[in-house]
Amino acid sequence: MINKVSVNEKLDLIKQHWDPIIAGELNGQHIKLVRFKGEFTWHKHENEDEMFYVVKGRFTMKLRDGDIDINENEFIIIPKGVEHCPLATEEVSVMLFEPAGTINTGDIKNNFTKINPAKI
Amino acid sequence: MINKVSVNEKLDLIKQHWDPIIAGELNGQHIKLVRFKGEFTWHKHENEDEMFYVVKGRFTMKLRDGDIDINENEFIIIPKGVEHCPLATEEVSVMLFEPAGTINTGDIKNNFTKINPAKI
Repeated sequence: MINKVSVNEKLDLIKQHWDPIIAGELNGQHIKLVRFKGEFTWHKHENEDEMFYVVKGRFTMKLRDGDIDINENEFIIIPKGVEHCPLATEEVSVMLFEPAGTINTGDIKNNFTKINPAKI
Repeated sequence: MINKVSVNEKLDLIKQHWDPIIAGELNGQHIKLVRFKGEFTWHKHENEDEMFYVVKGRFTMKLRDGDIDINENEFIIIPKGVEHCPLATEEVSVMLFEPAGTINTGDIKNNFTKINPAKI
């Protein structure tokens, strides 16, 4: 059975910041949705590139060699091994595209870490 | 060098319907952008799942067991092996996620076929 997915409807189901859900899966990759506000944690992914597409709002991707502001309808791809830290002064809604099994905090384990995002 | 990508700016560079561009690459997958209008061609991809996310507008994904209307901010994942045919009565802008090397017309070769989309 093939169903379409409303990104906005899924985002409305998210109750907590920094708590990603899995909205789709294809070719071993996950489509995740997350709402966040505030500053995340510096981390990197050893083996996974990660794409952040802003559905609504804006945020800053902090990188060791400079910050990049990502606005609505823009995306950024963070290559594996590159340290990054998302920062959102206001709430932002983001669609992530990354390999299944990618841990949100990468090489760091702390209170932000979500090992098994819900499939909603 | 890490750069962000404006999806709208990239879409503005597309001159022809059904002519996808590669806007990003990660984990062996391509982010493609395409604008289309009218009816495509029935086809399937033997080895690749394909995701269609509507950035602007709407279209109908024709499937052998029924049509599904995909509106702005919605997506659909077509599993490998499933025949499909996009139909847009008005122009629609779509972001595709699929493995690098995926041919737009899958198992069919005709005037719609684009073997090497431009990286813009």
